[in-house]
Amino acid sequence: MKIVEQLHVILYPLTPEDWLRELKLIEDAGRTAYLSDDKITATSHEAFIKMIIGRDHGAVLEFGDMQVCFITDRGISHEIVRHRLCSFIQESTRYCNYSSDKFGNEVTFVEPSGCDRNSELWRNSCERAEGAYLDMLKAGYTPQQARAVLPNCTKTKIQVKANFREWRHIFKLRAISKAAHPDMRRLMIPLYQQCREECPIIFDMGEPEV
Amino acid sequence: MKIVEQLHVILYPLTPEDWLRELKLIEDAGRTAYLSDDKITATSHEAFIKMIIGRDHGAVLEFGDMQVCFITDRGISHEIVRHRLCSFIQESTRYCNYSSDKFGNEVTFVEPSGCDRNSELWRNSCERAEGAYLDMLKAGYTPQQARAVLPNCTKTKIQVKANFREWRHIFKLRAISKAAHPDMRRLMIPLYQQCREECPIIFDMGEPEV
Amino acid sequence: MKIVEQLHVILYPLTPEDWLRELKLIEDAGRTAYLSDDKITATSHEAFIKMIIGRDHGAVLEFGDMQVCFITDRGISHEIVRHRLCSFIQESTRYCNYSSDKFGNEVTFVEPSGCDRNSELWRNSCERAEGAYLDMLKAGYTPQQARAVLPNCTKTKIQVKANFREWRHIFKLRAISKAAHPDMRRLMIPLYQQCREECPIIFDMGEPEV
Amino acid sequence: MKIVEQLHVILYPLTPEDWLRELKLIEDAGRTAYLSDDKITATSHEAFIKMIIGRDHGAVLEFGDMQVCFITDRGISHEIVRHRLCSFIQESTRYCNYSSDKFGNEVTFVEPSGCDRNSELWRNSCERAEGAYLDMLKAGYTPQQARAVLPNCTKTKIQVKANFREWRHIFKLRAISKAAHPDMRRLMIPLYQQCREECPIIFDMGEPEV
Repeated sequence: MKIVEQLHVILYPLTPEDWLRELKLIEDAGRTAYLSDDKITATSHEAFIKMIIGRDHGAVLEFGDMQVCFITDRGISHEIVRHRLCSFIQESTRYCNYSSDKFGNEVTFVEPSGCDRNSELWRNSCERAEGAYLDMLKAGYTPQQARAVLPNCTKTKIQVKANFREWRHIFKLRAISKAAHPDMRRLMIPLYQQCREECPIIFDMGEPEV
Repeated sequence: MKIVEQLHVILYPLTPEDWLRELKLIEDAGRTAYLSDDKITATSHEAFIKMIIGRDHGAVLEFGDMQVCFITDRGISHEIVRHRLCSFIQESTRYCNYSSDKFGNEVTFVEPSGCDRNSELWRNSCERAEGAYLDMLKAGYTPQQARAVLPNCTKTKIQVKANFREWRHIFKLRAISKAAHPDMRRLMIPLYQQCREECPIIFDMGEPEV
Repeated sequence: MKIVEQLHVILYPLTPEDWLRELKLIEDAGRTAYLSDDKITATSHEAFIKMIIGRDHGAVLEFGDMQVCFITDRGISHEIVRHRLCSFIQESTRYCNYSSDKFGNEVTFVEPSGCDRNSELWRNSCERAEGAYLDMLKAGYTPQQARAVLPNCTKTKIQVKANFREWRHIFKLRAISKAAHPDMRRLMIPLYQQCREECPIIFDMGEPEV
Repeated sequence: MKIVEQLHVILYPLTPEDWLRELKLIEDAGRTAYLSDDKITATSHEAFIKMIIGRDHGAVLEFGDMQVCFITDRGISHEIVRHRLCSFIQESTRYCNYSSDKFGNEVTFVEPSGCDRNSELWRNSCERAEGAYLDMLKAGYTPQQARAVLPNCTKTKIQVKANFREWRHIFKLRAISKAAHPDMRRLMIPLYQQCREECPIIFDMGEPEV
């Protein structure tokens, strides 16, 4: 049994040049409506995008994209994949065999918020679920059958790509709003804060609710 | 601890009149492209829709809809919600408290295919997960925290609405193809067979692979 | 040359029973999240849907649908088809041959708002465009080539199906907001007012801006 | 009156490094399902993506994107915007005033295929439409009213962003298939051929039909 923390890694944009590329693609697209591309300068995207966001002209923000890799649990991933405008690829519990050498013959879990690692109740339950999973595989069940006993807090890896309009929507619902699941916020707030710092023109949407 | 079988209920279309209404809405829409609505008769939809399907003109099939309620487990529902062109509402493990009187103070599970109900391994694992869930609630955790220990085979209820084009796609991948998860097929094949019987013009796509 | 007015026809829901069916399908879906279907009565959908709209829980409104047939012009239809969550089938200028007997060997136009039918400028321009279209067909061009000279105000027929969540979005942008094109509003406001009257629980979103 | 040719410009990916970045983002996402990212090498994306395409696992190809600017006519753009999985921004006939200095007080057209520039029928029709448009503006109509008389062959500029899965779908329907409108193919085939040359791993889908 292994315990890991939730985690995000932005796979793209990586560098300040990458972020600038996305902003310039947004500006280039947005100016098509008025054929105002003669007004593009090295810094013109800043005022342009602020104006676009002020007018809530979300279609233009669809021309920037971000791809993120998350480590989270399957309870949270079940909520994430409800965002139907994203692209997703997720670790498959049908095909990954956690009893193999590749996975060290153990299952990995994410501790839920509100527990701590010494919480006997949660920890014991994970250990017993792992035991049942491994026993079922030994008894001849396939991984996609044995997964039945793995709990919501089983670790999963999921990649999510969406445009900036959709990411703003996700941050509003899943990071800023306090109605989100606490583990969703624990995952999304650090991503939101990183985006806000690296690309405030798009992502400065205020402090997360407390 | 309670064990239930997977289940589907078609909520709409219910009657032969309902199915006919959908077929006529499809025909009416489809004839717009060529302004051939003067050719509509009581039975003209049959040949028209066959022609549409023969030409793979899927856009026209979007004008018929079906709404289905499923009882399944959360492993399968995690796969179902990946169909991004559907509408979904699912039983919330954040807000439902299975320790309350409403739920009889017990958790409900779906037996995975390949197990039988006397399978000690699976059954014991569910019992222990239920025990940990109830203990966590007693210890002051909220339902959305305690759900962490509930396994993939926990029963869930989910309603799915999609147009006929999307349902055909779902049946192709999740019922007819043998690459689908066995429990997905156990859920989807009976729905497919019912649709095929009630509305063969749209849904006769051949036998499920064996 | 023929001139017609813009027009909408709701193809479904047609009767009060149809509207009620949609509301009940919405309620049935919506109550899945909390498993509160024991609270369904003959009239319970009213308070339930008001609560849903008050909380802006749009996903539930996706379980009702409306299919509408519009007569409008190709300038407006080019805007309508930008609503990417709808299904569309539109009269094809590639395949309809307006020089054929079926179309009375004439092209049909919609008068733009702000013109009146005696407006010489507009009327003459349409007549000349029709003449060029018919001449090109005589000269051996195909309909899909000759359509090049047909103007934005050429009449078109388009069927649009969407769920209630999307129709509310369309009405907000295209009927209620005065930022919409005047001919879009001339088309959409009567539809909005009819929906508001036939199904106020869903569609009473206030007066169109003046 | 001005006549221009249809045109495409790929705004992103621009360089071989850009294309490689997209391929590596696809590989990184795709390997998540099996957690096989330990197999990534400098060139491993080639075999991986070929395997993905061979298995028709389209979801993975959603992790690459291309943004294109098109010059085309409004007949073709009306077809392009039917691809509901793309993002679009289009030159606005509501807000652009072609009678202004910015546009040289003239309207721009695209010659339809099958015409040549000396075709009197088509050319005269455009000239008369331009005259009516300018006269209507002088008579006090707004640009969004006067656009009523502008024909399908009026030039437009549109930016389209989509993922590689959707671009492959577009190329199949709009470039490779001979069922597409000849002007659509005249626009899309050169884009397809450029993509095929710059990124054959994704876009080598065979010769356009003749």
